Amino acid sequence: MPKVSIKGQQMPESPIRKLVPFSEAAKQRGLKVYHLNIGQPDIKTPEVALNAVKNNIPEILEYSHSAGFESYRKKLANYYQQHEIQVDKADIIITTGGSEALLFAMGSTMDAGDEIIIPEPFYANYNGFSVASGVNVVPVISTIENGFALPPIADFEKLITPKTKAILICNPGNPTGYLYTEEEMQQLAELVKKHDLFLIADEVYREFTYDGDRHYSVMNIPGIEEHAIMIDSVSKRYSMCGARIGCIVSKNKAVMSAAMKFAQARLSPPTLAQIASEAALDTPKEYFDEVIKEYKDRRDTLIKGLSEIEGVKVATPKGAFYCIAKLPVDDADKFAQWLLESFEFNGETVMVAPAAGFYSSPNVGTTEIRIAYVLKKEDLIQSIAILKEAIKQYNSK
Amino acid sequence: MPKVSIKGQQMPESPIRKLVPFSEAAKQRGLKVYHLNIGQPDIKTPEVALNAVKNNIPEILEYSHSAGFESYRKKLANYYQQHEIQVDKADIIITTGGSEALLFAMGSTMDAGDEIIIPEPFYANYNGFSVASGVNVVPVISTIENGFALPPIADFEKLITPKTKAILICNPGNPTGYLYTEEEMQQLAELVKKHDLFLIADEVYREFTYDGDRHYSVMNIPGIEEHAIMIDSVSKRYSMCGARIGCIVSKNKAVMSAAMKFAQARLSPPTLAQIASEAALDTPKEYFDEVIKEYKDRRDTLIKGLSEIEGVKVATPKGAFYCIAKLPVDDADKFAQWLLESFEFNGETVMVAPAAGFYSSPNVGTTEIRIAYVLKKEDLIQSIAILKEAIKQYNSK
Repeated sequence: MPKVSIKGQQMPESPIRKLVPFSEAAKQRGLKVYHLNIGQPDIKTPEVALNAVKNNIPEILEYSHSAGFESYRKKLANYYQQHEIQVDKADIIITTGGSEALLFAMGSTMDAGDEIIIPEPFYANYNGFSVASGVNVVPVISTIENGFALPPIADFEKLITPKTKAILICNPGNPTGYLYTEEEMQQLAELVKKHDLFLIADEVYREFTYDGDRHYSVMNIPGIEEHAIMIDSVSKRYSMCGARIGCIVSKNKAVMSAAMKFAQARLSPPTLAQIASEAALDTPKEYFDEVIKEYKDRRDTLIKGLSEIEGVKVATPKGAFYCIAKLPVDDADKFAQWLLESFEFNGETVMVAPAAGFYSSPNVGTTEIRIAYVLKKEDLIQSIAILKEAIKQYNSK
Repeated sequence: MPKVSIKGQQMPESPIRKLVPFSEAAKQRGLKVYHLNIGQPDIKTPEVALNAVKNNIPEILEYSHSAGFESYRKKLANYYQQHEIQVDKADIIITTGGSEALLFAMGSTMDAGDEIIIPEPFYANYNGFSVASGVNVVPVISTIENGFALPPIADFEKLITPKTKAILICNPGNPTGYLYTEEEMQQLAELVKKHDLFLIADEVYREFTYDGDRHYSVMNIPGIEEHAIMIDSVSKRYSMCGARIGCIVSKNKAVMSAAMKFAQARLSPPTLAQIASEAALDTPKEYFDEVIKEYKDRRDTLIKGLSEIEGVKVATPKGAFYCIAKLPVDDADKFAQWLLESFEFNGETVMVAPAAGFYSSPNVGTTEIRIAYVLKKEDLIQSIAILKEAIKQYNSK
């Protein structure tokens, strides 16, 4: 029997999804399960986006340009300019989700055996894309004690080798909710200039900041135009995760030319979802005001509730809609499974993502979980009550 | 300035798209251009598919299961069973086009430096997916003289090394239109069993056969269940190229488990397009009868017309909607560019795909072109007249 590839064996299982069989079992036990494990918002998609699809279905569902609709790229460039990100439509290739943008970025900048430095904990699928691209992830640890701020630049420098090609950040961060300051972005800029590296910034949560803090885009740091690659997506901004539309943005012509060849090989991004995404750019400002207000409320509710559970440590997220919480348990993996397999509180339980899967270093984050605050306030309050009771029962087993 | 990857430099430019700037120029000269270069059918998408989207737009455009809607996989398995392909929904992962299915197949079965044998000429993007996957393409030549039949098995055996992991075929073939016989499929089956290889069959043109010949799916050959991987797509079957929905199908559990990890990393295939694709399975049989009749007519028109041009050699395609024609010109690349840059016939010209890009071997197929017969009969007749005149003028320059 022919064997699967080493790569296929090494591909990590998603830490978000590996508990799914246990949640199915919990549902079969008749339990209501609160899903804090996955970043699927419950926010409605803007009507303007959905109506555009309904009213503009073509007679022939054709390929689009490999870089995406020209009209969409143009309008998207305008959108960025309004958000003080100075890019032109020629700097943009529309991709099938932020996922494909990351694959194109890695493929265009790194070969098998090259290294990418990523502050951890990080979005778990960065591991998958790295394995798929034959690239080695070199983690640099950020800690809950520092609120997951940028690790000292000296820590990065220690890890740089001739194989290092890029630094990848997620800003604001999934799973940490951390928002890099202007000073931190400047430090990274100096670093990539000094060592001639790419700085890839996953900015899919750009719009989600809560305390009046400004988001500093990688595209807005003077002097690193040739180093900067921005990853973006409509998934979270418009609650359109299922559209699978994102983009890769860079002013480095060689990178964009390479990315374009990857884009041509797969022909085009999905047409119907591009119609929705282009129309979504007309979403009224009020939609975002409401959404941000809602998430801020949820964040405040969650952080307050978690902080009040004895032994739980949490860093207040400044953006995105995740937080990492350190629990007073022996092992968050076991605890998360136990929540679904053996626990219930008035016919309910919660599903969380064990945080170890968001670290690349072994045996780090083993008592941490990631919580996505994508449920409404009442459900979050209920989830916190369940978690509190669960920790008590788990530790008195 | 940081450099793009070697991979990024090696990614081939699409032979279908590299002439696009010249066709733009032709249009600026005021010419009407007949597009014989790209497999974008002019056939209408079934209404049942488009209406399903229109009537079932969800309030939140959510991620789907990473393997695609369960309901779609179930219905798709039924569809295959009706076409005498015995697969179950567990053997199917829905992908973002046949393109992603090929990437998953390569990623799950091959590592950097491994080799895949492909009869050439072959679908040009196999080169791109191979470079992206770090895999080396080893071509085995099929010839126009033999109508692009399967090369002798001895030719394959000469090329097999310890690095060889798979054989990839396209059946019916793009760009050749060749349909492998049962005997040829059996020969391939014996070969992959003997050398413990995977047999990956791209069957996206399965429904397009014209002379009552039967299509033999790789999934229907007894004894190679663990070797067989089928690639499929809705793009051509339902004229839904822009949907970007395909699938990877295999009974090899280890392959499907690896492919599932690639699928999880990119979260899910596009939701709206899955709604369309699931509904497309209810397309009435009459739709296909008409479509096949239309393509058969076009094929007959094209082949007859081309055969009547002095010096042109063409193999009659048995399936798909492409043919390779050998022209009496010095260089098909130059000729194709000249057609757009310098030629016109009553204000019109044609755009064709030079076939060299469909060969991996250097300096092969340099006087051949690929023609996609995706235009209506009158346009094909006109295109043939233009080609005839063009060849005459080109050779008397």
